[in-house]
Amino acid sequence: MTRFEFDIKARCGAARMGRIETAHGEIRTPAFMPVGTAATVKAMTPEAVTETGADIILGNTYHLMLRPGAERIGRFGGLHDFMHWRGPILTDSGGFQVYSLSDLRKMDEDGVTFRSHIDGTKFHLSPERSIEIQHLLDADITMAFDECTPYPATEEVAAASMRLSMRWADRCRAAFVQRPGYALFGIVQGGMYGDLREESAKALQDIGFDGYAVGGLAVGEGQALTFSTLEATVPHLPADRPRYLMGVGRPGDIVGAVLRGIDMFDCVMPTRSGRTGQLFTPHATLNIRNARHADDPRPVDAACRCPLCRNYSRGYLHHLFKAKEILGSMLATWHNLTYYQDLMAALRQAIAAGALEAFAKHHGALAAQGDIEPV
Amino acid sequence: MTRFEFDIKARCGAARMGRIETAHGEIRTPAFMPVGTAATVKAMTPEAVTETGADIILGNTYHLMLRPGAERIGRFGGLHDFMHWRGPILTDSGGFQVYSLSDLRKMDEDGVTFRSHIDGTKFHLSPERSIEIQHLLDADITMAFDECTPYPATEEVAAASMRLSMRWADRCRAAFVQRPGYALFGIVQGGMYGDLREESAKALQDIGFDGYAVGGLAVGEGQALTFSTLEATVPHLPADRPRYLMGVGRPGDIVGAVLRGIDMFDCVMPTRSGRTGQLFTPHATLNIRNARHADDPRPVDAACRCPLCRNYSRGYLHHLFKAKEILGSMLATWHNLTYYQDLMAALRQAIAAGALEAFAKHHGALAAQGDIEPV
Repeated sequence: MTRFEFDIKARCGAARMGRIETAHGEIRTPAFMPVGTAATVKAMTPEAVTETGADIILGNTYHLMLRPGAERIGRFGGLHDFMHWRGPILTDSGGFQVYSLSDLRKMDEDGVTFRSHIDGTKFHLSPERSIEIQHLLDADITMAFDECTPYPATEEVAAASMRLSMRWADRCRAAFVQRPGYALFGIVQGGMYGDLREESAKALQDIGFDGYAVGGLAVGEGQALTFSTLEATVPHLPADRPRYLMGVGRPGDIVGAVLRGIDMFDCVMPTRSGRTGQLFTPHATLNIRNARHADDPRPVDAACRCPLCRNYSRGYLHHLFKAKEILGSMLATWHNLTYYQDLMAALRQAIAAGALEAFAKHHGALAAQGDIEPV
Repeated sequence: MTRFEFDIKARCGAARMGRIETAHGEIRTPAFMPVGTAATVKAMTPEAVTETGADIILGNTYHLMLRPGAERIGRFGGLHDFMHWRGPILTDSGGFQVYSLSDLRKMDEDGVTFRSHIDGTKFHLSPERSIEIQHLLDADITMAFDECTPYPATEEVAAASMRLSMRWADRCRAAFVQRPGYALFGIVQGGMYGDLREESAKALQDIGFDGYAVGGLAVGEGQALTFSTLEATVPHLPADRPRYLMGVGRPGDIVGAVLRGIDMFDCVMPTRSGRTGQLFTPHATLNIRNARHADDPRPVDAACRCPLCRNYSRGYLHHLFKAKEILGSMLATWHNLTYYQDLMAALRQAIAAGALEAFAKHHGALAAQGDIEPV
């Protein structure tokens, strides 16, 4: 029987390289999880997602409970069978998406009542219901239901919000049915206040989780504050458990967070940017819709192994986006996810080689050269 | 050096099974050509198109001359290199699409002046310019520039229109640069009038083409009139040259036309229907958006070899269409093109086995059973 395990194989400063074992297979860390919001990584087949190098994908509890419905996915045997993804899946708790509904939600100690953005139907989410939904989805990694503290927030507001999340974390732990290979992660909150982050990290460890996430970042605070908050948080997390920075981020954010001891990431950036024609390369972020690409016979990145870069020119991709052709979104998403996975592979290699600082400096230098095209 | 050749390997009544050799490879006939309007078969990679069993695809001169432009594709080395399709390509002449612009076009003996539906830019198409564009696109099979006779049309109108197309056919022949492995096809017109069709077929043979298309059908005349017009046309075409029925059609139309001696087909039906959630199966055409599919764990067609049917349930595909996910269009298109290519393979096999009549009756019986769901 597979156990949920985290093996750290190499360290480099605060950074770690290793593997997580789950019910549906292994995750190489540091890991980037493509976002599969509505039971699909947009514009990609699961086989293509695997080819990019992804070991694990993320599903969104909020979207899936609304459509097609958690009980329905349960009847299909869970999210893996439903969407034909054989590897591990992490699901978020729904808290963050409900938080972004603002006017449509009502919160109390029990949980959140809200109306569907699709058809206005009333729904309720609580720690217990979130855990139940993630169980129906058959998530390998279930996230505790929390409140995402707004930014900016006073220390008082951030403290009250974090402490509510800690009471909810306790209820999540009680509701979660432990099974071999499955895990429950707690989420550190506390806004941008280091002492609140420390309090939250300790509260979660008192409850005891299989992994620890850092939530409430990448909410508009800027990279410097993200990094300093990480520095105030990570040292208070157990050294032998995976650490997941939620919703982050740009390639430079990921490199900086790995340097600070983070093992897991998710972000819509590579997929969403792909669908709008923003292409990541080591030297620049290209906006392929710009007219200057129309006659360019070069690939987006000559060194990239993805189908877009192996088989097509910038001029062709430009044409696909001008003509609003689906293949444009397909190829650009494939490229961006490949770029992200190759970055993670390079980070793992740099950690194993004890050369992460040099890699990060080189990456920073490349990023500084990069021209980011206006949209 | 590859020559353009058509070898008939088997006959069954008027039907023929064989192969066409072109500069970019072989086409098994009877053949169905997926439509790649804007230098992409919508929602498909070229590799996926090949996996469905397609040997050749069709490109649209009208759309490509407007965007990205014929001279531009020429600079990219032609349509094959531009869109990464290694097999043969047939391009239409642009005539049919310009015909459908109605108010935006002005026609005279030389050709047609029209405004782009994209940005209103003025363009001119003539027999010479159409051939030049198709040369820039590097089409393996170039179609003569013709006028699509309206339907219904009086015999007088149909005769005048057909004779204009025959004068244009002569100019196309003169403008076409013959190269090994490349072909120019003439197009029979004449509306629904058998004597005009015969006159047109003979006029084209006097000029001399590498293949002969039947144009001006599938314009709303109904299947019975399509078939009777074919019966009045095909016997007047040379027996040793490929015959192409343009823009047809539904599976039953294709079976009936193969019985009447047609070798090649194109139609947007499998791709366009795929994007709207209409799925072809031997027993029914499913509208996957219907609520009754939401909880159905069965594949669309258990006997189908496509990725949709091997890996996903009707319930999942229903969800993708309800959520407007790109993967829905990708998988449904893949399925429908597989259905069409497997139909063509079955037709080729039935001809080789001398059993086409029985196959057609069986196909008709299946089609009669089929429930076609309302949209």
